[in-house]
Amino acid sequence: MADRSLIFPAQEYRDRVARLQAGMALKGLDALLLTSPADLFYTTGFLTRFWESPARPWFVIVPQVGGPIAVIPSIGAELMGRTWVTDIRTWQAPDPADDGISLLADALSETLATQGLIGVPMGLETHLRMPLADFETLRLRLSPRRFVDATDIVQRVREVKSEAEIDRIRSSCTIAARAFARVPSLAAAGRSLADIFRDFQIALLEEGADWVSYVAGGAGQDGYGDVISPAGAQPLQRGDVLMLDTGAVKDGYFCDFDRNFAIGIASDAARSAYDALWQTTEDTLSALRPGLRPGLRACDVHALLCQGLDARGAPASGGRLGHGLGVTLTEWPSFTPLDKTPLRAGMVLTLEPGCVLGNGRIMVHEENIVLREDGAELLSPRAPAELPEVLS
Amino acid sequence: MADRSLIFPAQEYRDRVARLQAGMALKGLDALLLTSPADLFYTTGFLTRFWESPARPWFVIVPQVGGPIAVIPSIGAELMGRTWVTDIRTWQAPDPADDGISLLADALSETLATQGLIGVPMGLETHLRMPLADFETLRLRLSPRRFVDATDIVQRVREVKSEAEIDRIRSSCTIAARAFARVPSLAAAGRSLADIFRDFQIALLEEGADWVSYVAGGAGQDGYGDVISPAGAQPLQRGDVLMLDTGAVKDGYFCDFDRNFAIGIASDAARSAYDALWQTTEDTLSALRPGLRPGLRACDVHALLCQGLDARGAPASGGRLGHGLGVTLTEWPSFTPLDKTPLRAGMVLTLEPGCVLGNGRIMVHEENIVLREDGAELLSPRAPAELPEVLS
Repeated sequence: MADRSLIFPAQEYRDRVARLQAGMALKGLDALLLTSPADLFYTTGFLTRFWESPARPWFVIVPQVGGPIAVIPSIGAELMGRTWVTDIRTWQAPDPADDGISLLADALSETLATQGLIGVPMGLETHLRMPLADFETLRLRLSPRRFVDATDIVQRVREVKSEAEIDRIRSSCTIAARAFARVPSLAAAGRSLADIFRDFQIALLEEGADWVSYVAGGAGQDGYGDVISPAGAQPLQRGDVLMLDTGAVKDGYFCDFDRNFAIGIASDAARSAYDALWQTTEDTLSALRPGLRPGLRACDVHALLCQGLDARGAPASGGRLGHGLGVTLTEWPSFTPLDKTPLRAGMVLTLEPGCVLGNGRIMVHEENIVLREDGAELLSPRAPAELPEVLS
Repeated sequence: MADRSLIFPAQEYRDRVARLQAGMALKGLDALLLTSPADLFYTTGFLTRFWESPARPWFVIVPQVGGPIAVIPSIGAELMGRTWVTDIRTWQAPDPADDGISLLADALSETLATQGLIGVPMGLETHLRMPLADFETLRLRLSPRRFVDATDIVQRVREVKSEAEIDRIRSSCTIAARAFARVPSLAAAGRSLADIFRDFQIALLEEGADWVSYVAGGAGQDGYGDVISPAGAQPLQRGDVLMLDTGAVKDGYFCDFDRNFAIGIASDAARSAYDALWQTTEDTLSALRPGLRPGLRACDVHALLCQGLDARGAPASGGRLGHGLGVTLTEWPSFTPLDKTPLRAGMVLTLEPGCVLGNGRIMVHEENIVLREDGAELLSPRAPAELPEVLS
């Protein structure tokens, strides 16, 4: 990639914006106001780790017709200038008196008639990444224009990935798979989870990740209690099952899958739980053929996963059992009983069955897939059918 | 640290909440509603990389009297249970029908009389990390209780660090300093910025970072044009100045400083710009004695830095020339002409003078300090007085 700031050819972004504009037309929206790192990267190609600083808001307007308008802090002008966006307006942020709001209001005023509708993602899994008081000011300044929810428009477009996007996610998965293959040489009884997390992040970078936005995991006898805590200093013991889960990033695209390892000889309980998770995933991969089952929804996959686990005597752990994946670690839909989102070809998803063991601990298994018309294609190289044992 | 989930003894968090409650009392607030990773970590000790997933909102209520109430997705119950918080209420998120809003509304209703005021950070450098539509629902449900801006209350408390916090930031700085010391063995003409960014992140992890939330930098003849872009594949050349900037994290606390390196023999222009930055920083360190100059404000430091650079024929680059630092990569105040925030002992800050070279490129220098009654104490080991040359 000659210029890493763009990631894809401009046509990719034009297509995305055209799809957003088609959605906007259906809902009668005159503009879309986007503020999140993911939505800005998606529409413009603007990729930076500078989002880590919460100091400054960044705005992209997608008008009903024409290319996006970037209204951004001047520190981002050079990088945005290397994307396909040609209308770039900047201010010196942070400005306590007016942090880009007048500039943004002017740009929106030019874009819409005074009776216009401006879409903003304000539903499930969204946040408005700007000060709330500034949004109130903007709302008053632009009245009688109205702000309405555009979550659905953005999600229906972003959730169906292009082949270029799928390639990037596959690349991230491949990097993580190589790092996972090195875990048996990093993990051993007596080593702490903190040491293993650190070494695993190094392995991910060495294998080609641009950066490692997420590593989590757990360890405990036969299973673990928690999968979101930072690593602790307590050493692994024989009989532990170690789980590592990563969202490594390559060219702005995430993978999100995990792998389990028995430290020493795996117990029957651990092997049996792993087998239930692996076989349930296998069955679900076979069942995920949207071309064969029109109307398949996210909740149906949750039901499939629960049924597979129940049938194997490994009751599902609570919470969602998988989700979307792409320019953030997790995207909608969620494999829960409540999510009715229709599954469509081009969706990249994680299958993440978790089960509760007899001792109250859990085990979680995760793969990344893309839905094709004729079935599910794995993006993460399939986990081994039997729980690997680290015997060194 | 036996239990990494807490980081500090419970008394540290009790003191923080007591200071917030004192600020709330002054403004007549009955409760504070917090939603951001930084505010939740600050008040409870809840530290996780799981914030990388935008799927779920998390809430902490600080009542006018008593300990915080955590209203969180059930996936976080175990980790939150290891903090000092005892009132933890959970729901199965994400829930498209009610993603914690009824639970949150009930908790707030218990906490405040119907005429109460609820503070939410909604000013500069804040975002509300929950769906906007859910906030509107909450607002209606809790009416006639009102939501008011609490940015000032939170910022005045968080910006003054305890000795325990200062120690953590110093630890992060020390880790980064060890990694910077290894850059001469990583950087060379012919190597790409992408390779160097990767190796530098590995060095940060090897030196003890828990994770690397931020690495940026630039390279170009005598200086660079942009400091927020991802690394490119183009090889470094002799005559380039390489800058690396990092926000490495240890125990949830960031460092944020940079270092410059000449690739080969430094030109006079590069050495002169570096000297102007270094000497200006030196002068400003001497001048930063809030005990000696009551009423010193953030904008005054900006003026000091600009004057020092101007006097040395190295005009300041635009934008802010430093900022606060702590549980996020950047915090308020900003060293800009517009920021009137009073400087106080205990503030941890970055001094980040940048100057424009004759060729239009920039050079940026950065140190981390804590303000003491009797002057500025460096947390980052001071950069060398002369631009280091990588001659291998």
